[in-house]
Amino acid sequence: MPLIDDAISLPKDQIPRQWLNVLPHLPVPLGPYKAPDGSDLPPAALEAIFPPNLVDQEFSDQPIIAIPEPILEAYAMWRPTPLVRARRLEKALGVKSRVYYKNESLSPSGSHKSNTALAQAYYNKVAGVSRLATETGAGQWGTALAIAARWFDLGIRVYMVKVSLDQKPYRRTIMNLMEAEVLASPSQMTNAGRAALAKDPNSPGSLGLAISEAVEEAASRSDTNYALGSVLNHVLLHQTIIGQEVKLQLALANETPDCLVACHGGGSNFGGLAVPFVLDVLKGQKTEILAAEPTACPTLTKGAYGYDYGDTARLTPLMPMYSLGPDFVPPSIHAGGLRYHGASPIVSSLIKSKIASPVAVSADEAYRYTRLFAQSEYIVPAPESSHALAIACQKALAWEKEGRVGVVVFVLSGHGLLDLSAYESPLP
Amino acid sequence: MPLIDDAISLPKDQIPRQWLNVLPHLPVPLGPYKAPDGSDLPPAALEAIFPPNLVDQEFSDQPIIAIPEPILEAYAMWRPTPLVRARRLEKALGVKSRVYYKNESLSPSGSHKSNTALAQAYYNKVAGVSRLATETGAGQWGTALAIAARWFDLGIRVYMVKVSLDQKPYRRTIMNLMEAEVLASPSQMTNAGRAALAKDPNSPGSLGLAISEAVEEAASRSDTNYALGSVLNHVLLHQTIIGQEVKLQLALANETPDCLVACHGGGSNFGGLAVPFVLDVLKGQKTEILAAEPTACPTLTKGAYGYDYGDTARLTPLMPMYSLGPDFVPPSIHAGGLRYHGASPIVSSLIKSKIASPVAVSADEAYRYTRLFAQSEYIVPAPESSHALAIACQKALAWEKEGRVGVVVFVLSGHGLLDLSAYESPLP
Repeated sequence: MPLIDDAISLPKDQIPRQWLNVLPHLPVPLGPYKAPDGSDLPPAALEAIFPPNLVDQEFSDQPIIAIPEPILEAYAMWRPTPLVRARRLEKALGVKSRVYYKNESLSPSGSHKSNTALAQAYYNKVAGVSRLATETGAGQWGTALAIAARWFDLGIRVYMVKVSLDQKPYRRTIMNLMEAEVLASPSQMTNAGRAALAKDPNSPGSLGLAISEAVEEAASRSDTNYALGSVLNHVLLHQTIIGQEVKLQLALANETPDCLVACHGGGSNFGGLAVPFVLDVLKGQKTEILAAEPTACPTLTKGAYGYDYGDTARLTPLMPMYSLGPDFVPPSIHAGGLRYHGASPIVSSLIKSKIASPVAVSADEAYRYTRLFAQSEYIVPAPESSHALAIACQKALAWEKEGRVGVVVFVLSGHGLLDLSAYESPLP
Repeated sequence: MPLIDDAISLPKDQIPRQWLNVLPHLPVPLGPYKAPDGSDLPPAALEAIFPPNLVDQEFSDQPIIAIPEPILEAYAMWRPTPLVRARRLEKALGVKSRVYYKNESLSPSGSHKSNTALAQAYYNKVAGVSRLATETGAGQWGTALAIAARWFDLGIRVYMVKVSLDQKPYRRTIMNLMEAEVLASPSQMTNAGRAALAKDPNSPGSLGLAISEAVEEAASRSDTNYALGSVLNHVLLHQTIIGQEVKLQLALANETPDCLVACHGGGSNFGGLAVPFVLDVLKGQKTEILAAEPTACPTLTKGAYGYDYGDTARLTPLMPMYSLGPDFVPPSIHAGGLRYHGASPIVSSLIKSKIASPVAVSADEAYRYTRLFAQSEYIVPAPESSHALAIACQKALAWEKEGRVGVVVFVLSGHGLLDLSAYESPLP
């Protein structure tokens, strides 16, 4: 009996050697970023905290950007990632449609975040920067950047939201294994941190405050830059490696996708899948592109489109995006990566121009399909990824009802092994 | 520039289709198992808790045993696993020798335990059993068997040592996702558990007690069998898939191994690597086979060879093995899987006849190489695996001093993502 391989694997040498820049193709062009007071913001102003090569990428009009060799070598650690036919999940659902998942959980950090972390570390390195500062909530981004900093021999300090650090010490352990310095935020290291501690010595911290601390450090030290794990154009650019590989793999399997799904927090995972298919859709290909967000933080389904701040403190540039407003406080849901009040400008533009559509999923629905996936594919998905998984399953079930057979692809953006507290149930 | 693939991958279809039984080849034949009172134990007595097909394997004289198709299909979920050249680790060590690791951490349970868990679940299924009972300490075995039970549609109850359950709830979460019933041991479910609770309602439990509970349940219910994750001959048999793949992969890379290393707890991981090379060594091949154990539980380096009990309560059969005595209480070391007072009879025989040699590693040394491995290969090894890793690194360093270039292979038996508390360090 031949053994079936459900994974569509690309050889190492077929890692895409370029990123795809969607900026020149957007039907709704992005407005310029503005200073927090609403005045014009020259791109060069971003160089206070980002290296010039990344600022160039942020506003580039080049449709294709070559991936430098040192980044390709780092990607080769785990890329290309497999596109897997979820046959047992299909059987458990009772559908004739074909369900595929792109397994980004196989990266050294366990999520897609490594795709941009390595690129950002490289560009900072060649720009002569020797240290990075960043923030992390649950720790996925901090872990990815700590690994990337180690790979390119950069120092790194991670401001980790204090309450997350107390509740989930494990990602800090990995960051420490990588020689990253992890500080509980608020910290004594910055004005923002000291002010917060003066007000409340037991402050649990917040992602907004941790961002302020990391940005303050980067702005005040010439050897240090800031790195962000989502939202910005250059971050989405680096993630387009995902969608490009999916395209090659679907072609190998002779499949045309009817529906593509990724979860949406800041937008980098979703953008990474969607962007390589945008030109096809603009040319008339009938592929539905869905952004799965939690009903508890419905940025794309219920937010307003316009200029808004990226952080609660209103210190970031104003960007054109869907937003629930910087004062929106999402309930404490398990999918920590999907609690952002805003959205990436690129994703917002794709939604605005109806190239892609948002769908909201409840935590209960996400959990239900998590169980089904774990029990059929034997992988525990990250809580964020389970939102995309749920939408993909519901799509396949809807097709079944209509008597239709389709092809749906979702991104398993990460594994849930470091977020198992999200899936805990009481002892029987 | 061509991208280098450090992984030696076998295609799905080259999963070995047989296990290798070392029993007919042992220069020091195993004595028969004896009843706890020292009297003769007929093999059929084991059928009170094991299915007849596994009891047959336990005492088989067949050198090769075909793997049934349904188990091969399950193995195909993740096997063959890659044999990876650890180039960056070699560089970090500064050695010209070649270091390879067999990555068993890619299984659905994150360790090599799935190799036998799936086989045992299958053989119980075809024997008409509908439920399994087992014990687990840190949870690696319980997780593997829960997944296997789900795959073959068996019920399962896992007695998990109470103190481990309290300290590491995460593996229970995965077991629950698989619909396994997880009970804190001591439990109210068995005589052994009730007696322990009567004596001390706050008993933290022990592995020995959890074994007693699971065995009692299996012996008292006709629908239920017991499953053990290491030590026994049939368990080692199933793990020989590891060493067979390593052999095929080394041949693909045109390499002859000078040294093979695996960690040793009960012996299944070590036996799985070693057994397929035993005939070569008996024929004169100069391959050193090393069992890495912790200095804190030096069963093979300091234990005595003879008949001894497998458990503290002296309820198991007497088996011929190296042992520190059933009353040996190892200090609480992080590598929970390496705290067993005894050793598998097969491994004991290999050591006794000098086909393989034991080496002890301190926890500090293991941790030092864990950091080095994490910082060069970007994988967090299981605390157990780090003992094999340390010996492999020390071997390569010793060769370098001698001006020699060798090939050393170690088994990365599991990842450490669910054991990160073992690697925690204080905040700076």
